Amino acid sequence: MNAKRIIVIGGSAAGPKAASRARRMDENAEITIIQKASDLSMASCGYPYYIGGFFDDRDQLLCSPAGVVRDSKFFWNAKKITTKVNTEVTAIDRENKRIEFTDLISGEKGTAEYDKLIIATGATPRKPPVPGIELDGVTTLQSLHDADYLRKVHDEGEIKKAVVIGGGLIGIETCEALHLAGIEITLIELLPQLLTFLDKKMARLVEKYVMSKTNVILENGVAAFIGENGKLTAVKLQNGTEIPCELAVIAIGVIPNTQLAVDAGLPVGQTGGLVVNEYMQTSDPNIYAVGDCIEIPNLISGSPVHAPYGDLANLQGRVAGENVISGNVARFPGTIQTGICKVFDYGVGATGLSKKNCLKAGITNIETVVNASLDKPGFMDGKLLITKLVVDKPNGIILGAQVIGPGDVSKQVAIWAMAIKGSLTVDDMVNADLPYAPPYSLAIDHSIATAHIMQNKLNGRFSGVSSEQLREKLKTKEPLVLLDVRNPDEYEQIRLGIGEKLIPLGQLRKRLDEMPEDKNAEIITWCKISLRGYEAALILQANGYKNVKVLEGGIMAWPYKREK
Amino acid sequence: MNAKRIIVIGGSAAGPKAASRARRMDENAEITIIQKASDLSMASCGYPYYIGGFFDDRDQLLCSPAGVVRDSKFFWNAKKITTKVNTEVTAIDRENKRIEFTDLISGEKGTAEYDKLIIATGATPRKPPVPGIELDGVTTLQSLHDADYLRKVHDEGEIKKAVVIGGGLIGIETCEALHLAGIEITLIELLPQLLTFLDKKMARLVEKYVMSKTNVILENGVAAFIGENGKLTAVKLQNGTEIPCELAVIAIGVIPNTQLAVDAGLPVGQTGGLVVNEYMQTSDPNIYAVGDCIEIPNLISGSPVHAPYGDLANLQGRVAGENVISGNVARFPGTIQTGICKVFDYGVGATGLSKKNCLKAGITNIETVVNASLDKPGFMDGKLLITKLVVDKPNGIILGAQVIGPGDVSKQVAIWAMAIKGSLTVDDMVNADLPYAPPYSLAIDHSIATAHIMQNKLNGRFSGVSSEQLREKLKTKEPLVLLDVRNPDEYEQIRLGIGEKLIPLGQLRKRLDEMPEDKNAEIITWCKISLRGYEAALILQANGYKNVKVLEGGIMAWPYKREK
Repeated sequence: MNAKRIIVIGGSAAGPKAASRARRMDENAEITIIQKASDLSMASCGYPYYIGGFFDDRDQLLCSPAGVVRDSKFFWNAKKITTKVNTEVTAIDRENKRIEFTDLISGEKGTAEYDKLIIATGATPRKPPVPGIELDGVTTLQSLHDADYLRKVHDEGEIKKAVVIGGGLIGIETCEALHLAGIEITLIELLPQLLTFLDKKMARLVEKYVMSKTNVILENGVAAFIGENGKLTAVKLQNGTEIPCELAVIAIGVIPNTQLAVDAGLPVGQTGGLVVNEYMQTSDPNIYAVGDCIEIPNLISGSPVHAPYGDLANLQGRVAGENVISGNVARFPGTIQTGICKVFDYGVGATGLSKKNCLKAGITNIETVVNASLDKPGFMDGKLLITKLVVDKPNGIILGAQVIGPGDVSKQVAIWAMAIKGSLTVDDMVNADLPYAPPYSLAIDHSIATAHIMQNKLNGRFSGVSSEQLREKLKTKEPLVLLDVRNPDEYEQIRLGIGEKLIPLGQLRKRLDEMPEDKNAEIITWCKISLRGYEAALILQANGYKNVKVLEGGIMAWPYKREK
Repeated sequence: MNAKRIIVIGGSAAGPKAASRARRMDENAEITIIQKASDLSMASCGYPYYIGGFFDDRDQLLCSPAGVVRDSKFFWNAKKITTKVNTEVTAIDRENKRIEFTDLISGEKGTAEYDKLIIATGATPRKPPVPGIELDGVTTLQSLHDADYLRKVHDEGEIKKAVVIGGGLIGIETCEALHLAGIEITLIELLPQLLTFLDKKMARLVEKYVMSKTNVILENGVAAFIGENGKLTAVKLQNGTEIPCELAVIAIGVIPNTQLAVDAGLPVGQTGGLVVNEYMQTSDPNIYAVGDCIEIPNLISGSPVHAPYGDLANLQGRVAGENVISGNVARFPGTIQTGICKVFDYGVGATGLSKKNCLKAGITNIETVVNASLDKPGFMDGKLLITKLVVDKPNGIILGAQVIGPGDVSKQVAIWAMAIKGSLTVDDMVNADLPYAPPYSLAIDHSIATAHIMQNKLNGRFSGVSSEQLREKLKTKEPLVLLDVRNPDEYEQIRLGIGEKLIPLGQLRKRLDEMPEDKNAEIITWCKISLRGYEAALILQANGYKNVKVLEGGIMAWPYKREK
């Protein structure tokens, strides 16, 4: 039997993973990676941290865990994989199972035959169709070349002002990197919120924090890049504002690189990504596709999504690498779109569906709750976590969670991602058995406490109001009794100042005469995180008040301006 | 209808939680906590950190999250719960639904009637039946009084040498606390290993690390405490050794406090804990029991266990507090015995069953694997994690995981705990969708990589050997070819030195002639963490070698002495 010929188009993340897995499955296969860029296996998710100066050795972006640069020599010696860098595949001839390629340095053309082909062509940054985009000082952050450019900016320290366009993951990471270089940053987002994987109120909390570090302008896009002598001097917004700056980083998303596949007649889905089945196979049984160029199902909504995440690219590569050798035995079922982002000293993460995405997917009978607490005890230097949990109301199945704050967000998101993976319900989560010791968590972990509140809500014992809803109520001047039940000391330090009365929880039972006579009056209670707010609501309900609600997440989750 | 009378015996963790939950369920119930000690709601898991000086304000051990000390006044004002401290319940008269109690200060006796009773009497430290235990300087670490005593030791700085007896969670936490006080410590354990929730090899890795901080003596118990003028001067071991010391802390486990319940005719199970059903109800429908005095089912083995963990006590309290008011509606199904412990700068955690406990439970058709990797990329200052995963071989269901190392152990244990909660299999875990960004994890999270190796092993592609097995083979002088496939630089820095040959992975294909002619020769390969070791094994197998194994976890998981 002849050695199997495997060609992988793309050498960044999914491609090398697929090639390596194929090699492990078959020592005798002829495996070739063809890569358009000059480098291989770049840790591109690490670029913002290289730019920000978290580390200085650029090779670390290209190294194996053992510290060897993953260049062509490495791939050949360690993995017996042939790599052609600076080489573009220009056509796929499916009938003859052959590709055509061009060496981008020499201009030489060639062809190669495959038994199985893996397309891992990645994605390209989206760019706004506006004048001045070619100016010196306008860049994206996608290639190692971009990272080198921005690291130079960091090291030279000459640029004072920058505009970052796009408030998604990459945009925010870029803000942090440039902020660490001492650059004054303005972040521009076309939509009414940053980080669209968050529901609006959660995004507001992040925005409030980001605004303490950079300028943030929402609902505004770029109209033009303005320059002098070929160099950027300002960004002009759609509302006419001009922001002087010497650097602009565009981070408004990516477009799957599918042209090559489309030219070969392979289908593209509604998100713009290549269509593959759970074996990572395209409509051509000899062609697989992985990574940022494909679309995959969201496992909760069932809808296809474009999810260009480095972790998924690796998992898909592993599956395709196995299947090109062994036939379709390995599966990649899809994603629940788990993600996390470092936003200065906050973690911001999500898994599953937000409320917004539930509604989009037609899942409307849902319940949500916001919980705020420390991640571990105060005496162990616990830090704040705020979680919004979304569940299916009829059966309590966890649909999604968003977690933000300076606390241990990563663990919380992992817990909820696993809960969704296991199709767990709120009733399962209330007794989750998680690792507890004071250096790591509260006795009742933040995630479990969130499930407790949700269970109380589903059982009708907890009636909550979100800060958004409360603000709407305040705007419409509905008659409301607002009740803060913290201690006077706490009230002096920090308070909403929206017309609330202060009655400390410990005095409430004795001061019920200060509450309205009308038992149908709408009363909203809160404290710092709203545990005491909840207890206050129960006391009022037990005393006949029929319309008492708790401000979810308390003062800590209030994203708007406070009096103090 | 008369107000329901709820009496809770015990005011540490489970008791107050049950009482608070009952209050939230029913504003009108008469709820009383009777507590033998003088304090209430102590954060006893925090004692080692108070002793070690992680924080100085003792009140923090007794405070609500809002910073209010949870004393009798707090319980009455905030929760309308009556508390009687320094009060011992001496008898339960089930027929008349009445308890008898004695005020330990005044000696006064009294009785009180209940509709529902909750027993939360906790546990008492086990003490070795040896002479000298009454000496000044011999203590346990269970009560706040113990914590005060040891904190005084810390603050005074006069004691130079201490012996800690018992290498479980509390013993190890005590070692760290005393170490931080500059005290030289010897840790004594009767069994052949520390931390018996770990399999032996994992425990060896922890022992190796602990030995860099304290003296460790295994398989030896205390024969006597030796003193002069009533003060401890040495601990005498069963083998005759005398260890001079001024302080000895006994931490050899706890015994459930069940006498009161037993006297009332309530049944105790095989572990010594009170028997309750999933509603936390004893055989008497009016009496519930929660916390360290009960036994609960291990959800994997089905066997009852005594699991005195603070988090479970709280969850049980919540269930009992609900059920005494609403009838049996809430359930606490049991535990998978998830736990974690800070061991100096290591985290040490486990969930589910170890291999040892699988075998004990009669689950014998299992597979295990050890994986070592960083928790996040090297360029983000990633730290080592070592995981041992145990799965059911016929169906791949996750049975347990043990995780140790300076890396983010807490998240890993939480992930596996949730996998067990969801009855997930290895095939589910290979495509887990976890939050990835370089500040938080590797592109393929450590847990997922562990599942990948396990999948390879279950599919027969990865044949592993544990360090224990390899050491046995070395002892019996079986003919072996030992192959380290790292780079010469790495080999110079650190190596096992057990007769291995160095052939870097990148050279292996060219140097196959250096391998034995006999294709049946037993070859064992490794690298730092054994990814390259695995690739080397595949190359050898592809070249006809039939008996190649990979040293699991590589050099990083080798718990024995190394040459370098």
